[in-house]
Amino acid sequence: MKTDLQLPSMYDSLKENIGNEANYVPLTPMSFLSRTADVYPDHPSLIYGDQQYTWSQTEYRCQQMAHALKKLGLQAHETVSVLAFNTPETFEAHYYVAMAGGVLNTINTRLDEATISYILDFAETKVLIVDRELLAAAVPGIRALKEQGKSISIILIDDPLALTQPELPNDIEIHLYDELLSNTQITKQDYLKTQVDNELQPLAINFTSGTSGHPKGVVYHHRGSYLMALGTIAGWAVPKHPVYLYTVPLFHCNGWGHAWTMTAMAGTIICTRSIVPKQIFALMKQHRVTHFGGAPIVLNMLANSEDCPDKIADDRTIYCMTAGAPPPAAVLGKMENMGFEVMHVYGLTETYGHILQGTPQPDWVEADAATIAELKARQGVRFPMSESVQVVNPKTGVPVNSDGEEMGEIITRGNTVMTGYLKNPEESEEAFRDGWFWSGDLAVVNPDGYIQVKDRAKDIIISGGENISSVEIENALYKHEAVGDAAVVAMADEKWGETPCAFIELKKGFKANEAEIIEHCKEHIASFKKPSKVVFGDIPKTATGKIQKYELRHKAKKLTD
Amino acid sequence: MKTDLQLPSMYDSLKENIGNEANYVPLTPMSFLSRTADVYPDHPSLIYGDQQYTWSQTEYRCQQMAHALKKLGLQAHETVSVLAFNTPETFEAHYYVAMAGGVLNTINTRLDEATISYILDFAETKVLIVDRELLAAAVPGIRALKEQGKSISIILIDDPLALTQPELPNDIEIHLYDELLSNTQITKQDYLKTQVDNELQPLAINFTSGTSGHPKGVVYHHRGSYLMALGTIAGWAVPKHPVYLYTVPLFHCNGWGHAWTMTAMAGTIICTRSIVPKQIFALMKQHRVTHFGGAPIVLNMLANSEDCPDKIADDRTIYCMTAGAPPPAAVLGKMENMGFEVMHVYGLTETYGHILQGTPQPDWVEADAATIAELKARQGVRFPMSESVQVVNPKTGVPVNSDGEEMGEIITRGNTVMTGYLKNPEESEEAFRDGWFWSGDLAVVNPDGYIQVKDRAKDIIISGGENISSVEIENALYKHEAVGDAAVVAMADEKWGETPCAFIELKKGFKANEAEIIEHCKEHIASFKKPSKVVFGDIPKTATGKIQKYELRHKAKKLTD
Repeated sequence: MKTDLQLPSMYDSLKENIGNEANYVPLTPMSFLSRTADVYPDHPSLIYGDQQYTWSQTEYRCQQMAHALKKLGLQAHETVSVLAFNTPETFEAHYYVAMAGGVLNTINTRLDEATISYILDFAETKVLIVDRELLAAAVPGIRALKEQGKSISIILIDDPLALTQPELPNDIEIHLYDELLSNTQITKQDYLKTQVDNELQPLAINFTSGTSGHPKGVVYHHRGSYLMALGTIAGWAVPKHPVYLYTVPLFHCNGWGHAWTMTAMAGTIICTRSIVPKQIFALMKQHRVTHFGGAPIVLNMLANSEDCPDKIADDRTIYCMTAGAPPPAAVLGKMENMGFEVMHVYGLTETYGHILQGTPQPDWVEADAATIAELKARQGVRFPMSESVQVVNPKTGVPVNSDGEEMGEIITRGNTVMTGYLKNPEESEEAFRDGWFWSGDLAVVNPDGYIQVKDRAKDIIISGGENISSVEIENALYKHEAVGDAAVVAMADEKWGETPCAFIELKKGFKANEAEIIEHCKEHIASFKKPSKVVFGDIPKTATGKIQKYELRHKAKKLTD
Repeated sequence: MKTDLQLPSMYDSLKENIGNEANYVPLTPMSFLSRTADVYPDHPSLIYGDQQYTWSQTEYRCQQMAHALKKLGLQAHETVSVLAFNTPETFEAHYYVAMAGGVLNTINTRLDEATISYILDFAETKVLIVDRELLAAAVPGIRALKEQGKSISIILIDDPLALTQPELPNDIEIHLYDELLSNTQITKQDYLKTQVDNELQPLAINFTSGTSGHPKGVVYHHRGSYLMALGTIAGWAVPKHPVYLYTVPLFHCNGWGHAWTMTAMAGTIICTRSIVPKQIFALMKQHRVTHFGGAPIVLNMLANSEDCPDKIADDRTIYCMTAGAPPPAAVLGKMENMGFEVMHVYGLTETYGHILQGTPQPDWVEADAATIAELKARQGVRFPMSESVQVVNPKTGVPVNSDGEEMGEIITRGNTVMTGYLKNPEESEEAFRDGWFWSGDLAVVNPDGYIQVKDRAKDIIISGGENISSVEIENALYKHEAVGDAAVVAMADEKWGETPCAFIELKKGFKANEAEIIEHCKEHIASFKKPSKVVFGDIPKTATGKIQKYELRHKAKKLTD
């Protein structure tokens, strides 16, 4: 890499050395595995049921699979899709795909057949690695590709811990993951060096479900994921040898990039196929877990589970990163009492995951529990790898006042911002404006500089000319003891234009009626913000636990039609 | 930044987005200060005597000085030299020089006038920031530049804690650091954004004293120092808010890059003008220090001081990074008993400081104290930011066997390798060969992969055709209770070609004679390696505490002439 730097003449003789082979190496998270396998070869890397691997074994298995992929014909920068649970194979894919020169595309396991078909085709998948329990959802897509004459190799993860062993189709050639491994005998001399010609070359494609239309393919590069890992280590102060329970789906921003982060710190990753509180608590105890991550809904499940212990561990704090929506104060409080230290973060698929962190300030310890929970429910301040995160007036681009009142759109700039949306220049252009990535999320900046997300732009309810944040109402709803899950959307109103409509899923064994809920809201928020309608029942959620507000909007529309 | 990446056509529409303003930001350690000042504005940044600053104050002072430098006429990429102790001003220089667009050149405070003159001239210094006690050593160089018609601005650090206030010369215009600050009133709107057009542009020049001839100017870039900081955080597992006692001279590889590392973790830096054990222990206690670094000679001083406590702290471990020479096992043992956790690292000025670390393995705790000390005395395995460190046969380039026996030269490759030597293409070319940086240090690789430095290439003694490592003999000497410091060099010998000649500085109150020392060596190393001559007396050291072997070689030569 040569540069066109304009430097004083005293640097003339150095020009030839700038970015030479010895002093410039493209950044890639692949380097974490080769170092950790070198430095801590015998330290446990992955534990899943009875399976346990060391870092040198993990490197070996990844190298085996990389060889197997190349043997299947994978070419440079071609896509390898993975439709699988958080088992060792999915973790390993975060290495062997790039080792083989490919680009990793992890697919949300809860998507429907049509969307999976769309993704396999749109991402131009050459190899699909799929869990046996998920194969059926991919079969129509595989057949469609074959009918178009496109070649796709299928590698099956046949997990003995799976609850079911569905029949395999006869018309599709299937390679078994374990057979590919046992048929690929290599030695250290055969180890592939990951070919990163340019640190900005694609590493992964992560599809993000829009609220409407087809999902968009967000492209990550090696530099971004490398810096995401190191920035997370600094921002979360990850110690050496963490024991990380992988409850965040690996298909979600590559599991928030933690696959690479935990490798860099020579951690031990505890895999799990599903999220069942009893089992999560047992794994935490058995393996002396120190770190995990999860959407607020996971924290909710843990905090409200009948299996939840008084104290999670006598001898250590368990650090928890949560993202997706502001965790209710009650849930935060309960988690902290149990011995978790919860850090709320904010990010998008487009930013490789978290870019803001509700990092606690030293003086917060002096506050009472309720205040701490409120402080911690905010999305916070930027991670070290985020160059800049601002909240600006979407029309003028001027930063809002740090008064906790003025709302604006979150914009960001940094090395952990996507290259763009795959084959979608219109959306890419829309997302990148004036040298910033525009998030579409609305937020305020508090006087202490902590950013607090108020809503997606489209989740704002405009009632009688006043902006009402649906999140603010939801927070008020969560303070009611009977409320398990809550979501508020705009409902058309003749007089006010829009009014808030609340959807509530009650906790088991609890009761509440509409009048009581509205009265409760008036105690916590301005009266004009109270819901004008409350609907009880199940709340539809996406595969990642995000509430599907567009469906609720649809329901709300029906109520007024 | 555009790239010439060859990607499949499905990435065509993304090409325009690769490295756009929103998703590519040049890496620079300057970003750590702006983030930490944003996120932890009120956290203490620097403490020095009665002075105490917060991170927002440090940012403000740095911005003030950056403005002052620009007002003095500093242009982009021009050199600002600093000849000063580890006071807040020197720490601050690690930010304001780059903020103003300049390149930082910290000068070893113990150099002689002639060398300082050489450096000021060779580095084309435009501004010199100098401590009042050190000004006299710079005056001849300043006058020489002025006589040549070159302009240089002088900024004086007039430290009230200095023991002396030497007279100032009448013929040199001098700006006072504190006056420049108080005369530069700015607001947040005036804050300069560090102009890093290219992350490979120069950030610092660090002169390294060769064993002969003029010192060489090692050029660092922004990317390197940024990755050095993040890699150190990961490799040393630096926690949030460390309290770092700055005993490593800031002129030594920018204080091992820790100025930037500790900023990234929002630490508190304790400054000190000098290294006096009693005072060091007092500062550690007063400020609840958690981390520090030092050459083995500093550890030696601490461990052998009469002020050394039994236990350094009841409530915490103090983490110590040491580099320069293998610390004697006895010193390591004493430090660990006191409550320090010492990590031995290896690096050179050319590699931004440490690239290898003697990181402890989980199973070392099972070993006895002597074994642990031996394990820890090795230089170890690579830091996360070091792409590769190998020990190879200098002639063939083939890696040595990992047998702890076969010696080779340490070569390395990575983003923390210098751009090259300033205005010295011959030495740069010599250092970079076949895509590697050649260190000139000889080492073995142990069966566990830990590298152990045996000697500088020129410090090997070849006796009767056998290679003898002077370090091995020195280690044996240090095991003698009377030995304070020891150094071994080759001495000409008619029969053997060369034989080892030992120089010994005895501990206070201890006695030993030549025969006794030679006998002692025979108990610990092969007889052919024992010194044939032992000389008692003071051992000459460089400003950074490195033993000046070339002077000892000179003395040894005299003995045989």
